[in-house]
Amino acid sequence: MKNTFGVSVAVTLFGESHGPEIGAVIDGLAPGLPVDEAFIAGRLALRRPAGKISTTRREADAFRIVSGVFEGRTTGSPLALLIPNTDTRSGDYQRGPARPGHADLAAFEKYHGFEDYRGGGHFSGRITAALVAAGAVVLPALERKGVRIGTHIARCAGVGDVPFSASETGLAADLERLNRLPFAVLDEGRGSAMRDAVEKAAADGDSVGGVLETAVLGLPAGVGEPWFDSVESVLSHALFSVPAVKGVEFGGGFALADMTGSQANDPLRMRDGRIVAVTNHNGGINGGVTNGMPLIFRCAVKPTPSIALEQQTVNPLTGEETLLSVRGRHDPAIVHRARVVVDSVAALALCDLLALRFGTDWLARD
Amino acid sequence: MKNTFGVSVAVTLFGESHGPEIGAVIDGLAPGLPVDEAFIAGRLALRRPAGKISTTRREADAFRIVSGVFEGRTTGSPLALLIPNTDTRSGDYQRGPARPGHADLAAFEKYHGFEDYRGGGHFSGRITAALVAAGAVVLPALERKGVRIGTHIARCAGVGDVPFSASETGLAADLERLNRLPFAVLDEGRGSAMRDAVEKAAADGDSVGGVLETAVLGLPAGVGEPWFDSVESVLSHALFSVPAVKGVEFGGGFALADMTGSQANDPLRMRDGRIVAVTNHNGGINGGVTNGMPLIFRCAVKPTPSIALEQQTVNPLTGEETLLSVRGRHDPAIVHRARVVVDSVAALALCDLLALRFGTDWLARD
Amino acid sequence: MKNTFGVSVAVTLFGESHGPEIGAVIDGLAPGLPVDEAFIAGRLALRRPAGKISTTRREADAFRIVSGVFEGRTTGSPLALLIPNTDTRSGDYQRGPARPGHADLAAFEKYHGFEDYRGGGHFSGRITAALVAAGAVVLPALERKGVRIGTHIARCAGVGDVPFSASETGLAADLERLNRLPFAVLDEGRGSAMRDAVEKAAADGDSVGGVLETAVLGLPAGVGEPWFDSVESVLSHALFSVPAVKGVEFGGGFALADMTGSQANDPLRMRDGRIVAVTNHNGGINGGVTNGMPLIFRCAVKPTPSIALEQQTVNPLTGEETLLSVRGRHDPAIVHRARVVVDSVAALALCDLLALRFGTDWLARD
Amino acid sequence: MKNTFGVSVAVTLFGESHGPEIGAVIDGLAPGLPVDEAFIAGRLALRRPAGKISTTRREADAFRIVSGVFEGRTTGSPLALLIPNTDTRSGDYQRGPARPGHADLAAFEKYHGFEDYRGGGHFSGRITAALVAAGAVVLPALERKGVRIGTHIARCAGVGDVPFSASETGLAADLERLNRLPFAVLDEGRGSAMRDAVEKAAADGDSVGGVLETAVLGLPAGVGEPWFDSVESVLSHALFSVPAVKGVEFGGGFALADMTGSQANDPLRMRDGRIVAVTNHNGGINGGVTNGMPLIFRCAVKPTPSIALEQQTVNPLTGEETLLSVRGRHDPAIVHRARVVVDSVAALALCDLLALRFGTDWLARD
Repeated sequence: MKNTFGVSVAVTLFGESHGPEIGAVIDGLAPGLPVDEAFIAGRLALRRPAGKISTTRREADAFRIVSGVFEGRTTGSPLALLIPNTDTRSGDYQRGPARPGHADLAAFEKYHGFEDYRGGGHFSGRITAALVAAGAVVLPALERKGVRIGTHIARCAGVGDVPFSASETGLAADLERLNRLPFAVLDEGRGSAMRDAVEKAAADGDSVGGVLETAVLGLPAGVGEPWFDSVESVLSHALFSVPAVKGVEFGGGFALADMTGSQANDPLRMRDGRIVAVTNHNGGINGGVTNGMPLIFRCAVKPTPSIALEQQTVNPLTGEETLLSVRGRHDPAIVHRARVVVDSVAALALCDLLALRFGTDWLARD
Repeated sequence: MKNTFGVSVAVTLFGESHGPEIGAVIDGLAPGLPVDEAFIAGRLALRRPAGKISTTRREADAFRIVSGVFEGRTTGSPLALLIPNTDTRSGDYQRGPARPGHADLAAFEKYHGFEDYRGGGHFSGRITAALVAAGAVVLPALERKGVRIGTHIARCAGVGDVPFSASETGLAADLERLNRLPFAVLDEGRGSAMRDAVEKAAADGDSVGGVLETAVLGLPAGVGEPWFDSVESVLSHALFSVPAVKGVEFGGGFALADMTGSQANDPLRMRDGRIVAVTNHNGGINGGVTNGMPLIFRCAVKPTPSIALEQQTVNPLTGEETLLSVRGRHDPAIVHRARVVVDSVAALALCDLLALRFGTDWLARD
Repeated sequence: MKNTFGVSVAVTLFGESHGPEIGAVIDGLAPGLPVDEAFIAGRLALRRPAGKISTTRREADAFRIVSGVFEGRTTGSPLALLIPNTDTRSGDYQRGPARPGHADLAAFEKYHGFEDYRGGGHFSGRITAALVAAGAVVLPALERKGVRIGTHIARCAGVGDVPFSASETGLAADLERLNRLPFAVLDEGRGSAMRDAVEKAAADGDSVGGVLETAVLGLPAGVGEPWFDSVESVLSHALFSVPAVKGVEFGGGFALADMTGSQANDPLRMRDGRIVAVTNHNGGINGGVTNGMPLIFRCAVKPTPSIALEQQTVNPLTGEETLLSVRGRHDPAIVHRARVVVDSVAALALCDLLALRFGTDWLARD
Repeated sequence: MKNTFGVSVAVTLFGESHGPEIGAVIDGLAPGLPVDEAFIAGRLALRRPAGKISTTRREADAFRIVSGVFEGRTTGSPLALLIPNTDTRSGDYQRGPARPGHADLAAFEKYHGFEDYRGGGHFSGRITAALVAAGAVVLPALERKGVRIGTHIARCAGVGDVPFSASETGLAADLERLNRLPFAVLDEGRGSAMRDAVEKAAADGDSVGGVLETAVLGLPAGVGEPWFDSVESVLSHALFSVPAVKGVEFGGGFALADMTGSQANDPLRMRDGRIVAVTNHNGGINGGVTNGMPLIFRCAVKPTPSIALEQQTVNPLTGEETLLSVRGRHDPAIVHRARVVVDSVAALALCDLLALRFGTDWLARD
């Protein structure tokens, strides 16, 4: 399905970094959901570059919704939103040597040179603005149904944040706070250290990566499928589409590999008439199906490949070996900007799973 | 799509741990592929429990193919294969308390108690036998097209194997050797230490997990899609369906999060008239699309949840808190058995991507 | 998706006319539905050839369900059912000249000669036995939800049946009666004339076609999508998979083309507090979405292509022109047997649309 | 998948009759296809209302392509095109009684009153402008591969056109001529009579329907699948999404129901080293798979439901019975405008089938 993700609630993406407009179509939305354009603008602002640790490209992200909304609410028909690209300097991006770590070479092989290479074209992180806007359409609706999503920068440039609160109440407070922060860390001191490290890398002409950790509260138990549409399967499918994500893990993730069963298994107890897991090493999912505990996952974000430092590379058109120092306006880190992308992707994927399970009107039901 | 995975080449799974038969339907196979039943039997043997580090359940895996093969070759119609369950002892699995770390609770919430709970029912690792058989149908065809797949136990019970060879020639030799080994490690000393550690955990009534690392050689460049069907997306979707997999990473994976761009970017050079990456931190994929380098990924396998050690749990039917020591025949580790499952899942997912890219006959083309 | 149809409730078909077994996997069934094997057997009996107007091939259709049912009810996991082929005489079907009107030539082009050509292989009407069994799993569940389906032979061998009753009460009685009849006509005199005409064609070494008309009562309004999953789209997709169906029309269908708007539009009135259409030229669907009126559609079934009369044809292997008189055991008409196939296909497709609209448990909800 | 159709080549539609813009996203296009904006404009002109037999709404259809095209050629990334709505008079469309024959009532049931009811909203034939533009992107590429598509008005207002030429050469000439005509009939005298009949109906405050007959030349044999993606299945799925289509038939269609096998079977002969069918009652498809003969199908188009004549109806909001005479600007017939819609839908669906069969680059291959 390529640029469409989802079955009952589906999002279709289009656009290139230096084309006139990028956009998304969200299909299958329940009718009657309020659409809050100020909230969407706010989420786009959280994704937008800011300060010394981001690209100097400045986009207003003046999105508009051209279908699917009538008198402030979703109609149930596809919602199409468009975001113009305004601050493009394509002169910075003549076709030249493949940028190491970028999709340039793979794109050339796939599209035989017909791809729009300017700024990475359709591979660009710019496209995630449309994903963020799409996510911002459904996040308030999920929240009204008691499903809350939030992400912190668990690691950036080698600096770690403190972990999420262990209790659900604490976790809910964490998410609420994170969703208001421009730089999403639980410990501001660690955040400050991260930003210093990013600035240092930028000063060196280099870049850094990080890890994003996401929590989802309030998901009903019984969502997802053992084969092949496990919650992990569906979420990872969507998350691995986000540029720079190279690893996804749920609950204890890779750390579970070194644990014993007696450490990793989550004991079950009754709390207030409900079965709960005392620990949450499984991250809210057993057998691919939600178990009612918080859904926890982490994404590894590789360092931004565009760096000023000189690198060895080849021009795929000519086969000529060359050295390349990437010019243009680039992010020394994107992990802090990617966090709203991850929230959005998770929100859209979960809406789809929930609509499949409970029907197309579930999200709008009182 | 639930129990069906794939678009052009699709596999559908069915069956329960203690039902009469499990099976798979593989649809979209190119016509004319030789089907080697001895090879399939060999792959099933690699998955079958053996020795002290596995369950004592013994299944002959006497599979039969009931459609889609005519005069020893695929017809292009769906290939259905069935594997009878013979050594079932359902008495060991009366419905009772939810086994911690298992899907029991999630399944109860999802299916309202109508699920076949015996031995985990449709959630059981037993179903992977059908996946292994399905994978074994396509692996020789991929090999004839120059695509080779192999997996080693990179980690088990806290013991690490040596890494894959750095050169493609070395890697090819690694894969060839691994595919003949019942316990797939590159360093037999490490393998011996792993087995000792598993036996020790078993003796303690406990279980262990591990990490599987897979390499795929010979994939053409230009396969996969930036949004949303990146190679990482499609493979992780399939891999996270395998029971116990809780993390998937490509190339450098989570380690990339702590690297700088200048370390992580793979420099490009010309070798024998072909553009190659000098390092392979991106694991053969850029922008979701294959770049012609070896595809490398790792799966975190959590420790088997069925353990003899006493655990706290709840009976979901009655809400009663209780202690549980899991009886029955269980694996103290499954990582060594899961390795052929991972190969199979990867083979099927890659066949689908290749058929979408190059057409339905590609796999059979000379 | 080839041999899989459906999104939330999906059916996968496999098997060949002369292979050992044919079968179907039904995925996405609500858990807890009673499975009535006697009812399934009864539906298979309605499909089975009988009397002088059918092939003399006799199949017991001794189906078995190997997964997805536990203690007499669906589990929510895929239900796989298998039907052995017993009365095969492959000697009648050596590869030879392409049979005119059959798929032989198209199959040869598609599968390059690797297809199982015996008895039409995977193209055979024999495969519909699995579809009928699959439909029989869901028909009683639909009935419990108030959704009733039935088909009559509106035309056969040039003889027309009387039309369905105009009132919903009358229509409900029609369906109840039809579903008990081996030869499904509303007027037994017309049915007798049809059978005479079929026997005459058979005596001439020829065959005949017909039209099946289906009604579905009790569908909730608001099911289906304007683009592209209209109820007409989804049903016709499934119906055109049934061998020999060459036309599908809804409500007035092709007759609407010669009507004026004032004749064709269905006036709306209030009846018992509910909005109803006074006429039903739209066949229960407007804009692709159910409107609460009975769903009405018709399928054109072409005459069976296997005939004893001599025909001009070519051997695709050799390119040699030849004359062919089809031997073997053939049906001079299949329209009377296809009627349960059409019911089944409609039932499965509607289950999918209903599950998408109302969630996966809808069919089992009280 | 709702508003997305296709697997390898997929189109997503959005927009409402009176919203700011409508549009389509075409995904999966081969890279390097020339995009001819003048041709697209020409196809939109053929769909646009003209003269006394159409609505007086005048839309410039000033489309723009915002992604997926670079330097005049497709990139392989999704092509998004937008068409502004300019001549909207929403005052004509306050929510009121449901218009008989329209989707108003079904939409109200489905969307609970949140639908954009103005001008039919997302159900409007206006959306087909985006489909026509999308079709016009791929039609020239199909033509370069030897696949030609054309449609004539086989029937309108009770007046029939002459049939397509029997020979392939004649048929090719028919298509070439039809694709230049604003009113697509093979016999201009019949066309003149059709227009007179439409004008007469319009003068009476009424409307008429018709039948469109389409031919596709040059399709390779071996495309399509027996179950469930037969060429008939895939095309009818797409065609039944076009508003007002209530019947679809292939080859002889419903007329086959009254033929015998000896009449309906297409004898095969050798012509110039190729196997051809002497007649084409199967419309180029056997067993759901193309056989190399011209693909022939017909769509029944019901009379436009918006008529000035007074009709009985109900207001779904209030349940009040009322009389309605539809005001606003309406088409007394749409069959002549729908013809380019049908071509477009067929072109897109066939591109998908061809890309699945021969790979994503096939359409661009020399």
